[in-house]
Amino acid sequence: MSTKPFILYTAGTPNGHKPSVFLEELKRIYGSSVDYDVHKIDISKNIQKEPWFIKLNPNGRIPVLVDRSRNDFAVFESAAILLYLEQHYDKERKFAFDPVKQPDEFSEMLQWIFFAHGGIGPMQGQANHFRRAAPEEIPYAIKRYTDETKRLYGVMEIRLAERDYLAGPGKGTYSIADINVFPWVGLHKFAGIESLDEWPGLKAWFERVDARKGVQAGMIVP
Amino acid sequence: MSTKPFILYTAGTPNGHKPSVFLEELKRIYGSSVDYDVHKIDISKNIQKEPWFIKLNPNGRIPVLVDRSRNDFAVFESAAILLYLEQHYDKERKFAFDPVKQPDEFSEMLQWIFFAHGGIGPMQGQANHFRRAAPEEIPYAIKRYTDETKRLYGVMEIRLAERDYLAGPGKGTYSIADINVFPWVGLHKFAGIESLDEWPGLKAWFERVDARKGVQAGMIVP
Repeated sequence: MSTKPFILYTAGTPNGHKPSVFLEELKRIYGSSVDYDVHKIDISKNIQKEPWFIKLNPNGRIPVLVDRSRNDFAVFESAAILLYLEQHYDKERKFAFDPVKQPDEFSEMLQWIFFAHGGIGPMQGQANHFRRAAPEEIPYAIKRYTDETKRLYGVMEIRLAERDYLAGPGKGTYSIADINVFPWVGLHKFAGIESLDEWPGLKAWFERVDARKGVQAGMIVP
Repeated sequence: MSTKPFILYTAGTPNGHKPSVFLEELKRIYGSSVDYDVHKIDISKNIQKEPWFIKLNPNGRIPVLVDRSRNDFAVFESAAILLYLEQHYDKERKFAFDPVKQPDEFSEMLQWIFFAHGGIGPMQGQANHFRRAAPEEIPYAIKRYTDETKRLYGVMEIRLAERDYLAGPGKGTYSIADINVFPWVGLHKFAGIESLDEWPGLKAWFERVDARKGVQAGMIVP
């Protein structure tokens, strides 16, 4: 029987990659104490809608993290998984800000996490749907969601034009705010956006994050 | 000059009502120390896209909270505003769980906040758009987003069938997880959902939250 502390139920999607990227980053600091078993969920077969999975996440979506070292506590919603791992397992606060000692930076980080979770994720997801999955071609919807994704990238550009990372003092510090949105930006072509050249600050940020070993390891899970 | 500690930039929308509901709840416990000036933003005139507002929120969206008592610190994203107010101004933890002493309940609360922020809000918003604002009638999109809103209400039903509130031990405790999604559920008719009868647990929860004086006061702001 495995003694790794976590099970990550996941698939190769942007939301699935958020926790695997963060776990790989944590492993590079904290080693085997944050290692994890990967349970790949075949979303093309709707495994995530089966009753055993609905008990873990009533929404029937990946990713879900189960923490064996804390009574098999289950966490759903990708951003909630990042915040859970951060609170319990990043004791040195390498990837976030201390809510008590750095409350403003902590709030900024949350603001950008929610911005991505309610904006870039769902809107880019709709662009993907109407471009790649919808049974009929609906030009109005394709344009609506590609335009909205571009607008949201423009919002990130406002923030990143003179900063290295989304949250933190000065030019910012790499944090789970960056991890939370990086996998979505990486999939921009699926949303009909050929390149990031239009947003040079965003593009430089993307390359900066993409160069990290932990990110590269997390993006190929499962 | 006003001495109220906050300015809330808002409009009469579900996301706008989240912070006004919470501020009204807090006022009933903590009094004038959490009072706020309301700055109504006419979103039909795109005031939220003007440069002075973009400095507060680069995304050009209401609501934004400015905290006069903490150096005019500005918070955007409705759920981030709830968490900010909770951390700094709900000293008795009347509306949330202590992240250190109740970490599992705190995580559950975040999970349901993210569920609503990335699911019910954006999907119900798209249902509203295709039913009420789109320049052409697109049956596929209307059905897609109304069906998805219903599915998400069904997820809340799984949780609320035997509970009073979304997070907390036993039958749950009223918290910002409930405040965060209540104004969206209240607008279900805009998404083409005539009543909540299909989801009795959700309906009972809605009536339970709706009966609160603070909620009623917050829902008519501005």
